[in-house]
Amino acid sequence: MSALGNGKKYRAGVLGATGMVGQRIVNMLAGHPWFELTAVAASERSMGKTYAEAARWHLETPIPEAARGLVVKDLDPVLDCDFVFSALDSSVAGEAESVFAHAGYPVVSNSKNHRMDADVPLLIPEVNASHINAIPVQQKNRKYDSGFIVTNPNCSTAGLVLVLKPLADAFGLEKLFVVTMQAVSGAGYPGVPSMDALGNVVPFISGEEEKMESEPQKLLGKWDGNRFIDAGLGISAHCNRVPVINGHTECVSVRLKKTATIEEVKDALRKFEVPDELASLPTALKNPVVVREEDDRPQPRKDSDVGNGMAAVVGRVRECPLFDVKITLLSHNLVRGAAGAAMLNAELLAAKGFLKNRTAHRSSASEVLARG
Amino acid sequence: MSALGNGKKYRAGVLGATGMVGQRIVNMLAGHPWFELTAVAASERSMGKTYAEAARWHLETPIPEAARGLVVKDLDPVLDCDFVFSALDSSVAGEAESVFAHAGYPVVSNSKNHRMDADVPLLIPEVNASHINAIPVQQKNRKYDSGFIVTNPNCSTAGLVLVLKPLADAFGLEKLFVVTMQAVSGAGYPGVPSMDALGNVVPFISGEEEKMESEPQKLLGKWDGNRFIDAGLGISAHCNRVPVINGHTECVSVRLKKTATIEEVKDALRKFEVPDELASLPTALKNPVVVREEDDRPQPRKDSDVGNGMAAVVGRVRECPLFDVKITLLSHNLVRGAAGAAMLNAELLAAKGFLKNRTAHRSSASEVLARG
Amino acid sequence: MSALGNGKKYRAGVLGATGMVGQRIVNMLAGHPWFELTAVAASERSMGKTYAEAARWHLETPIPEAARGLVVKDLDPVLDCDFVFSALDSSVAGEAESVFAHAGYPVVSNSKNHRMDADVPLLIPEVNASHINAIPVQQKNRKYDSGFIVTNPNCSTAGLVLVLKPLADAFGLEKLFVVTMQAVSGAGYPGVPSMDALGNVVPFISGEEEKMESEPQKLLGKWDGNRFIDAGLGISAHCNRVPVINGHTECVSVRLKKTATIEEVKDALRKFEVPDELASLPTALKNPVVVREEDDRPQPRKDSDVGNGMAAVVGRVRECPLFDVKITLLSHNLVRGAAGAAMLNAELLAAKGFLKNRTAHRSSASEVLARG
Amino acid sequence: MSALGNGKKYRAGVLGATGMVGQRIVNMLAGHPWFELTAVAASERSMGKTYAEAARWHLETPIPEAARGLVVKDLDPVLDCDFVFSALDSSVAGEAESVFAHAGYPVVSNSKNHRMDADVPLLIPEVNASHINAIPVQQKNRKYDSGFIVTNPNCSTAGLVLVLKPLADAFGLEKLFVVTMQAVSGAGYPGVPSMDALGNVVPFISGEEEKMESEPQKLLGKWDGNRFIDAGLGISAHCNRVPVINGHTECVSVRLKKTATIEEVKDALRKFEVPDELASLPTALKNPVVVREEDDRPQPRKDSDVGNGMAAVVGRVRECPLFDVKITLLSHNLVRGAAGAAMLNAELLAAKGFLKNRTAHRSSASEVLARG
Repeated sequence: MSALGNGKKYRAGVLGATGMVGQRIVNMLAGHPWFELTAVAASERSMGKTYAEAARWHLETPIPEAARGLVVKDLDPVLDCDFVFSALDSSVAGEAESVFAHAGYPVVSNSKNHRMDADVPLLIPEVNASHINAIPVQQKNRKYDSGFIVTNPNCSTAGLVLVLKPLADAFGLEKLFVVTMQAVSGAGYPGVPSMDALGNVVPFISGEEEKMESEPQKLLGKWDGNRFIDAGLGISAHCNRVPVINGHTECVSVRLKKTATIEEVKDALRKFEVPDELASLPTALKNPVVVREEDDRPQPRKDSDVGNGMAAVVGRVRECPLFDVKITLLSHNLVRGAAGAAMLNAELLAAKGFLKNRTAHRSSASEVLARG
Repeated sequence: MSALGNGKKYRAGVLGATGMVGQRIVNMLAGHPWFELTAVAASERSMGKTYAEAARWHLETPIPEAARGLVVKDLDPVLDCDFVFSALDSSVAGEAESVFAHAGYPVVSNSKNHRMDADVPLLIPEVNASHINAIPVQQKNRKYDSGFIVTNPNCSTAGLVLVLKPLADAFGLEKLFVVTMQAVSGAGYPGVPSMDALGNVVPFISGEEEKMESEPQKLLGKWDGNRFIDAGLGISAHCNRVPVINGHTECVSVRLKKTATIEEVKDALRKFEVPDELASLPTALKNPVVVREEDDRPQPRKDSDVGNGMAAVVGRVRECPLFDVKITLLSHNLVRGAAGAAMLNAELLAAKGFLKNRTAHRSSASEVLARG
Repeated sequence: MSALGNGKKYRAGVLGATGMVGQRIVNMLAGHPWFELTAVAASERSMGKTYAEAARWHLETPIPEAARGLVVKDLDPVLDCDFVFSALDSSVAGEAESVFAHAGYPVVSNSKNHRMDADVPLLIPEVNASHINAIPVQQKNRKYDSGFIVTNPNCSTAGLVLVLKPLADAFGLEKLFVVTMQAVSGAGYPGVPSMDALGNVVPFISGEEEKMESEPQKLLGKWDGNRFIDAGLGISAHCNRVPVINGHTECVSVRLKKTATIEEVKDALRKFEVPDELASLPTALKNPVVVREEDDRPQPRKDSDVGNGMAAVVGRVRECPLFDVKITLLSHNLVRGAAGAAMLNAELLAAKGFLKNRTAHRSSASEVLARG
Repeated sequence: MSALGNGKKYRAGVLGATGMVGQRIVNMLAGHPWFELTAVAASERSMGKTYAEAARWHLETPIPEAARGLVVKDLDPVLDCDFVFSALDSSVAGEAESVFAHAGYPVVSNSKNHRMDADVPLLIPEVNASHINAIPVQQKNRKYDSGFIVTNPNCSTAGLVLVLKPLADAFGLEKLFVVTMQAVSGAGYPGVPSMDALGNVVPFISGEEEKMESEPQKLLGKWDGNRFIDAGLGISAHCNRVPVINGHTECVSVRLKKTATIEEVKDALRKFEVPDELASLPTALKNPVVVREEDDRPQPRKDSDVGNGMAAVVGRVRECPLFDVKITLLSHNLVRGAAGAAMLNAELLAAKGFLKNRTAHRSSASEVLARG
């Protein structure tokens, strides 16, 4: 059954469609049961080319047929679609997403710019689906009529918070240390030069530690009807780049609020499942956290694709001499941490009635342009 | 000036000479001002071959001439040398090192077996040189006459403790988190299969976290004349293998006993220098801790060889939201963490008069053998 | 429609089931329309364990359920199956395969031992399917009743010959140079040490150049009813190991017998298709050679999985100053070059009536054992 | 003894000093017995900064003190130096080098632009030192007074031709195949994206095959007093990028003019030595070709630094089924293939009297500028 209820699909546009994350979104839209790709937009360099010409394709499967011939548009909000994904670079995302929301488009963004805005949901459906209730407040605040912005977290935050959620529910969280070993695909293309990546570790990713120390507060916090209340969690993050293609690995030590044995912690992780309503979203997993018992897992090359890249894989759950528990976790930075995260957010919005057929709006495109 | 004072050099043997660390020791002995290589011993597989035949050489410089033709002996304590380095595998090191010490050889070991023994110094000259005072007690306990055992720490502990030392001196240490990203050379040869290493992270190294959580206690603790007093430091370690050839990178968050600004911490690290007596040891550096100011250093491929591999390179000194300070450190696992560590220990022993010319002993080799 | 014609599947055993290639075969059998896995055998180290216990699993998908609980048997020819795949190490494959064939099992081997035997087909269905006509002669020669041996080529030969076939058909082949850059998975597990593979090229693979210079002669040659006639092709091969997980890349310069333009060569490659009878085999592709037009393809990380790993991907078709044409080709060494090659051979045998239900034979297992 | 004969050094400038090759040249000039670095120039982006600010330093040793504070100039020929090295990008090198030569500077270039010019020596001192005799003709042709241009070959050509030279001398060369596996440092910085390099082979390097097929003709050819006579050698090259930091590996099959046994070929390679006059150049080796007997050498990570990176290391000398001999060779692309090659060329020019003290010229700098 389509979310539209009438066999039709929502028409999706992708802003920043030619980049590494944009390509993943385009790819996930091929064969999506609820959405169809009808528009691609990107920076001016690509404008006017077909998508096949403009995108230096990085996936191992070919460019979807539905995308090949689409002409790449610029970032004007006159795209032929019901809503847009944004995989724009942060240098342009802030302004462009506001413009699209103002023009009436729901904007499902992977970019960092609006994540911490006071009225923008930073959303992981399995973690804080109720934060979508901030959308009407946002629309009122910003004088958007039907448009709005929702965001997904940073690629290294996504997997972490997904794993923290069942622990927060079962035991409460006090504080945590996290050290990441992040894949090069997280830096886009051309991204990390091979002279820096080969046989090396780069112990710095600009802005990443700040995101990891702030975004979980909002994700694990509450929307009280007017504003987001932080989770009040202590977080210290160290972020590193390692020579891995896909999959961010994270070593975490957590202090729980309630005492728990290692077995209880594993149990909470293993039993974490989402409500049926969420599990029925096309991209969702019923059990998005997978616990491995082997000594030496998870490993990025072997475990990144678990659950089609939407799972967080946890291993090495063991006691921490300083806090309560040490774990190692892994999630696919381009799927769970970006394209898949945005897709799941869009699906939640569709299921909750936040997406609309924008046919009527399109007739007023010239007005939007006139507005300047 | 030779440590022997008469232009002669101490004659060194190497147990486990064909392995990755043994090769580094053999290489460092070539041209050493105080020591000369006179004997190599290894497991039975290599016995009777020349060193050039037996060693699958891994260094980028050729096998030293002095080593090429030496016939590899077995692990019987009848080697023609004044003392031995031990780079033996832990499966045989425990017993073999005891036998050599009992037979009168000073044993300078890189192996883990005796590190935590109650009367064996676990030694980093820049950190706890006074621990050599345990040697006479060890000799008495174990009824060794002139022989004894000293050890150096695990490769991932070595750099960490070297960096902690000036912080302990200046501010006191309360506790710390450390996450390692360790080079594959630390696993020896053949070691880590390329199917596990390429484009991957393996979040487990057998026994490594336990070593990192215990060895610093002894290294930063005290010898009270009878026993070692632990430093009483809280440590939580996560250890990972990354696709890097040489150089262990470590992300550390430290809680100090005394408040300090980031600038004061950097200052303590930068100003750390060893007494002239130590600095004059051939392998020593006056300033073994190097502080980098760039955002993205240290990096293993670029910084492992700083100070001929004997320095610990520190970067990204910054505030920690949970503890006091976050740092990233790097040291060469085969040099500072193994062969160079043992060499420096032997030099300290030489300077302090613990090495002797064993000519007399050699005549009694048959007695040793008779002993069984 | 099942090859058995009655809805039943042939029961397959796998010799050497725990190795890298054996695992791929086990994985390909899961869900195979014609075959079902009923027995696994391996060297003595694994004997008596379940498959899940014995196999250190290397694929990114989990161990198939049908395989997990199978008890690993030794190499005695009393396995409960209709035919066996052999992915045995060459140290034991020669003898073991003969024993199984003698005991009545069709043996579909990936091992090198019998490839160049005078009466054993070395088979790539798309290239020389008619070579299966050697089977009756083999059975007569060797006094096998229903058993026999067929083999597939070496992993680096497989892709090369598949690409040479349409050129041989269209223009004739005189001679060729080939230089390989081979993935580490070709060496099995633990295989190539990471100390050799990381950031390095190893310009030697034992026995590989000899295989590449001899096997194509047989593959592109003819079976005249009594013996194989070599293709009489001049071949010079250089083989290298590069730090790639899967996919062998090969640079080839070919001298054709008939003059051809680059466009004619590309055309011959592009239009290469197999007869419908072959194309209907479950693992077959109608067009097993894929031609890429981009300057910089094929690339192993991006193109190894084309056609589920059964395609040879060709690119950079251009003029050669010395011979006629230069090309770069790529094929998946574990699929097209090993497990998939064996699977396709077994499917051809099934389609041609060379596989039988061995229920009757099993009753005589004790006789086979008695034979010693 | 200084080449200037009076204890003074020639003052060297480096055009393109901030790039990967420029940095190597700057580094080699530190402590050079004949040359001292007095000027650095680069593209406009770096202009006005100190060298330490402008260069993202890639070497494992620190920036030489003599270079740190030099202010980076633009490419105007008013640099305070006696001659210039050019490591400029080919987009600007052609014009800039001509301007400097016209302004009276000897230009020792690593750039490709003038390599194949009819009156510009393409020079490897050990191979074709006599080609410097073309300089006076060049000066006459181009109306240069004291300035001129000499070039060194492409990084993949350099090692190849060095190894071919003794074979050409001993047996004559008819033709050859060569397939390269080239390090990423050859593409500069940022150069090859890690998304392309990690675990991958890229079978294309723009323009590289053309260079390898043409440059050896000139290098192994003759200067007849008026023009260069090509060697008339048949060459077919395939060029690939592999995930290696430094060191280009090349598989070569050679057809000799005279029959030779493998032992004779090895002997010719081993005995290749340069005249004492050349061997006394500071960067020269007496025996620039090193032959290894192991099956699996040369390897880039282990052998690139042989002879301080100025040697070509040859291994696997064996029979070729199609031509006469197969070999694998390796040379350091940034040293023998770039910075070291230029340095040696400059040393040859110094020794032969082609460098002059340019003090007088500097006074006319304003005229040069006026010339436009």
